[in-house]
Amino acid sequence: MQLNHTHDVNTRSWLESAHAPGTDFPIQNLPFGVFRRKGSGEAFRGGVAIGDQVIDLAAIARDNAVSGPAAQAANACAGDALNDFLAMGPAAWRALRHALFDLLKAGASGPGVSALRASLVPQAEVEHRLPTRIGDYTDFYTSIHHARNVGRVMRPDDPLTSNFQWIPIAYHGRASSVVISGTAFRRPMGQAMPPGASAPVYGACKRLDYELEMGFYVGPGNAMGEPIPMAEAEQHIFGMCLLNDWSARDHQFWEMAPLGPFLGKNFCTTVSPWIVSMEALAPYRVPFAHPADEPQPLAYLDSAANTERGGVDVQLEVQLESREHRTRGVAPDRLSATSFRHQYWTIAQMLTQHTVGGCNLQPGDLLGTGTISGPTASEAGAIVELSVGGTRAVPLPGIGGERRFLEDGDTVILRGWCEKPGAARIGFGESRGEVLPAVG
Amino acid sequence: MQLNHTHDVNTRSWLESAHAPGTDFPIQNLPFGVFRRKGSGEAFRGGVAIGDQVIDLAAIARDNAVSGPAAQAANACAGDALNDFLAMGPAAWRALRHALFDLLKAGASGPGVSALRASLVPQAEVEHRLPTRIGDYTDFYTSIHHARNVGRVMRPDDPLTSNFQWIPIAYHGRASSVVISGTAFRRPMGQAMPPGASAPVYGACKRLDYELEMGFYVGPGNAMGEPIPMAEAEQHIFGMCLLNDWSARDHQFWEMAPLGPFLGKNFCTTVSPWIVSMEALAPYRVPFAHPADEPQPLAYLDSAANTERGGVDVQLEVQLESREHRTRGVAPDRLSATSFRHQYWTIAQMLTQHTVGGCNLQPGDLLGTGTISGPTASEAGAIVELSVGGTRAVPLPGIGGERRFLEDGDTVILRGWCEKPGAARIGFGESRGEVLPAVG
Repeated sequence: MQLNHTHDVNTRSWLESAHAPGTDFPIQNLPFGVFRRKGSGEAFRGGVAIGDQVIDLAAIARDNAVSGPAAQAANACAGDALNDFLAMGPAAWRALRHALFDLLKAGASGPGVSALRASLVPQAEVEHRLPTRIGDYTDFYTSIHHARNVGRVMRPDDPLTSNFQWIPIAYHGRASSVVISGTAFRRPMGQAMPPGASAPVYGACKRLDYELEMGFYVGPGNAMGEPIPMAEAEQHIFGMCLLNDWSARDHQFWEMAPLGPFLGKNFCTTVSPWIVSMEALAPYRVPFAHPADEPQPLAYLDSAANTERGGVDVQLEVQLESREHRTRGVAPDRLSATSFRHQYWTIAQMLTQHTVGGCNLQPGDLLGTGTISGPTASEAGAIVELSVGGTRAVPLPGIGGERRFLEDGDTVILRGWCEKPGAARIGFGESRGEVLPAVG
Repeated sequence: MQLNHTHDVNTRSWLESAHAPGTDFPIQNLPFGVFRRKGSGEAFRGGVAIGDQVIDLAAIARDNAVSGPAAQAANACAGDALNDFLAMGPAAWRALRHALFDLLKAGASGPGVSALRASLVPQAEVEHRLPTRIGDYTDFYTSIHHARNVGRVMRPDDPLTSNFQWIPIAYHGRASSVVISGTAFRRPMGQAMPPGASAPVYGACKRLDYELEMGFYVGPGNAMGEPIPMAEAEQHIFGMCLLNDWSARDHQFWEMAPLGPFLGKNFCTTVSPWIVSMEALAPYRVPFAHPADEPQPLAYLDSAANTERGGVDVQLEVQLESREHRTRGVAPDRLSATSFRHQYWTIAQMLTQHTVGGCNLQPGDLLGTGTISGPTASEAGAIVELSVGGTRAVPLPGIGGERRFLEDGDTVILRGWCEKPGAARIGFGESRGEVLPAVG
């Protein structure tokens, strides 16, 4: 994707909060979500974040604040899910984002600007729901550092399976239990096989974990039997979010032979409310390649564009806020930080791989990248890696405490942002979820 | 579930075809599906099979052919998917089925009978779509004979994983590629690792297989974090169908470490059009127990009702019809036959296991049982088992041919029925799908 005027770092908005230091939502971002006023009986509808406000897309459509293809796109965002908008494809996505950008620019005027200004709702006053009706949710496994870290815990002799460097590995996840940031969930009950035991035990999860991931949403998609080639893959990706693939490690490790994770992963998956569009991420695309002495992608997973700029340099961090942090008014502790640019496969390769056998993707489907762990130990995206399977304590300096796995009352917060000289800093907001006690 | 007057083997209908020898759809069955006249622009709507006809439930609702709770239930069946009806639960399901039964009985008369008669559409003139909008599709792995047969091919030293006799094992499947019987699909492209090779190859599947399964549809379901106990499990199961979990064995075996099957199974899953209700299956429930010298279910997977009648004795068979069968006008060859009563876990145990960690099931969700293989070699539910991983030819006597895996043009037909002395024979119709050549 080429850079265009919406990426100009010097463009400012008439909305003051779009320039607040450290804001995730300057005029160069304009991520999409679904919202309503908190606790109101209002209908949920599409919205776009700008500064500390939300642009109400149902109002934009109703008040004819934009015209032409942008108006058609805004209409598709007026309902309680963005599936129809995502189905329209890149030209429509671009038309609406550019029209909003132009209305938001410093100096813009006219009835469209007045209508946009009237539509604004403070972010502090809104609640979100999932941005799409997710038909299917798929989770990949594409960080070689994560695969090696977890592999060492589960299979010390064979940490990396022989297919990892040939296939963007994935499994199907559970769509019904994908929830929006802020949703608390109960620690899961289930079966585990304690070390050395001869029979499994039933009980509350003892090794509860998070997984730092990103998610991406499918645009037009494909019909059954018609794979999407690499050259077209990114036309089918609307944008990205933060994703926490909560995991019950004791349940998962006992259940997953031979068909993979099931209950260990399907009790809750949390996504951030805002989808940052691939167009907004264009300044942060980076070259992508496997080391020359390692297997190179088969032809169907290869493309020049992917090599040139298949990666995305998103800075990511994980924070933990325990009950004690809240009681004592202490800021959350950072557990780790890394970048998505270290991932072994790109989102285009993930999407193409998903369809190569003929599987159909539908507008609004959610794909997760798998845990994002960077090359060093402190960049691990799950506590099972940081604690080396629970054998080492992970310090929580803020409260003088520690964790090997998550405890009841722990809130895990994921954050993501992009920044570099010469480009506007843009952010993803946050994904947040609290562990409630099990009901036995 | 107790037997009631709808199970009386002596009750006859005024509709002659309900008594045709070998019919799947006598008055004691009354399975539900979604249909319209073939090739018409009509809206799809709910229907019930009787003899060689379909009762149009939109017409039943519109013409007030039934009243009270049955009318509310018929209204919920008037649209193009049965999700709202399934959400209503057993009392509503029973009210509608009993009301239709009473209108269909020999000797019944009145405006309701006339309306029902006027609503009938010949089955030969209809086409089907999926009976529900499937939110999520889950596939279990609950035949110990299948697990041992396949395990011997994949893991000769360890055919049965240590968790099999403790957990109804499952993985999440792909909802978007579940299709209705009669839908052809393309042989999938993908990666496989040939024996002895040092790098995988990309190409059309060389080891294409079917899997004989049953499916069952979720009724009311549960909220996240609120598991369904065994004592309530069957109140959340509306009924059962036939299911073919087409599998690309070469792709599957290469991709599935460590997270399970993905592309090897997500290119197509075929279901039969009619859902046979659990109430219709009541005469065929059978006792269920694990052998006394093997692990017994943990308490959360156990109930007296499950032991007394958790099983279902459904007769099943697999037929193969090649292009040559069709060209020569030869009947399909039977590949195998077995019964669902041999399954190691019951559908109630599968449903309870699915929710024990808090995962929410939604009305209309589809759960598959996993391949159904009986205790003897000839009862295997997949060709990889019959051909012992492709090492032995499976004869097709009708054409003097053989198969190790499926060839282009092969149609696989699944059938299922229940019969025993003193009860009416009821059937499931068929699941049928044809393999089209790959597009390379």
